[in-house]
Amino acid sequence: MKKQFNPSTLYLATPTVLVTVASGGRDNIITLAWVGTVNSEPPMIAIGVRPSRHSHGLLEKGGEFVVNIPGSGMVRELDLCGSKSGRDLDKFEQCGFKRIPASKVGAPLIDRCPLNIECVVRNKLSLGSHDLFIGEILAVQADEAVLDDKGRVDMAKVGPVAFSGGEYWGLGAKLPRK
Amino acid sequence: MKKQFNPSTLYLATPTVLVTVASGGRDNIITLAWVGTVNSEPPMIAIGVRPSRHSHGLLEKGGEFVVNIPGSGMVRELDLCGSKSGRDLDKFEQCGFKRIPASKVGAPLIDRCPLNIECVVRNKLSLGSHDLFIGEILAVQADEAVLDDKGRVDMAKVGPVAFSGGEYWGLGAKLPRK
Repeated sequence: MKKQFNPSTLYLATPTVLVTVASGGRDNIITLAWVGTVNSEPPMIAIGVRPSRHSHGLLEKGGEFVVNIPGSGMVRELDLCGSKSGRDLDKFEQCGFKRIPASKVGAPLIDRCPLNIECVVRNKLSLGSHDLFIGEILAVQADEAVLDDKGRVDMAKVGPVAFSGGEYWGLGAKLPRK
Repeated sequence: MKKQFNPSTLYLATPTVLVTVASGGRDNIITLAWVGTVNSEPPMIAIGVRPSRHSHGLLEKGGEFVVNIPGSGMVRELDLCGSKSGRDLDKFEQCGFKRIPASKVGAPLIDRCPLNIECVVRNKLSLGSHDLFIGEILAVQADEAVLDDKGRVDMAKVGPVAFSGGEYWGLGAKLPRK
């Protein structure tokens, strides 16, 4: 038996990430969950940002962003960077993060995030509450601590965070193919 | 220390879902991981589909789709619906799925998926290898077996599947906010 529910964003488990942006000597961090891979060749990530957010202006002006993937121990930082405004405070300082220069874009990497995906905006689409920025991935940086013995990124060591039903969730077990 | 990697879609953990489409009396199922929430008001989901896929044509003609969220025990069905073509076989039959009529769209719900999100296409964007279809959520259906004692969907009971690093993963533990 199926039960019907109203249309809602609650039911898809999406990645929860810390996106960094920069323009004109200012930068910021924003927590986003309206994030997904959208294209393979070239590799592209789309992020949805409300136009009222401070990061929206920096993103429009700078035209670049970094998707910093937090580990599952960073819930406090996710809440802070999602609820406070960069107009009022420096979220790097509040979270005790250090900026690492990116290799291909102007926005900084967050040192404590084990994976950092550098993107340049290729397209923008206004959808209603959010603007969708579609970024091409230019480079990926990973902490050596999350690499396996062959030097590849081990997602189990990264421990990314999902958002669903208004809650944060960790990554579970790898599901073997039969 | 950070190590640099080539641009790649490997590093974001995205939802893995079974999307159903229909047009002109034909329907199909396709496994997709280039899927994400992109807007809150109205609630919208974007899905990336290669133009060469059989489902791409049905989606363009039908203009509607259902995001069927599989449980973590459905890896075989995810592999089958991602690798076979609906031009050659009936994936419902191959998987032992039954069609349930949707409430608002022409594409069917998959009975064995505990959550079904009915969408109408509002926008389409060609990005390179994939076309991005942006759908507004019109209705959500859930199995009674995945509801909590207050009648809300319990994502831990749904047990959705993520795709990252070329592997399937389950949903982990809920991460408490401090």
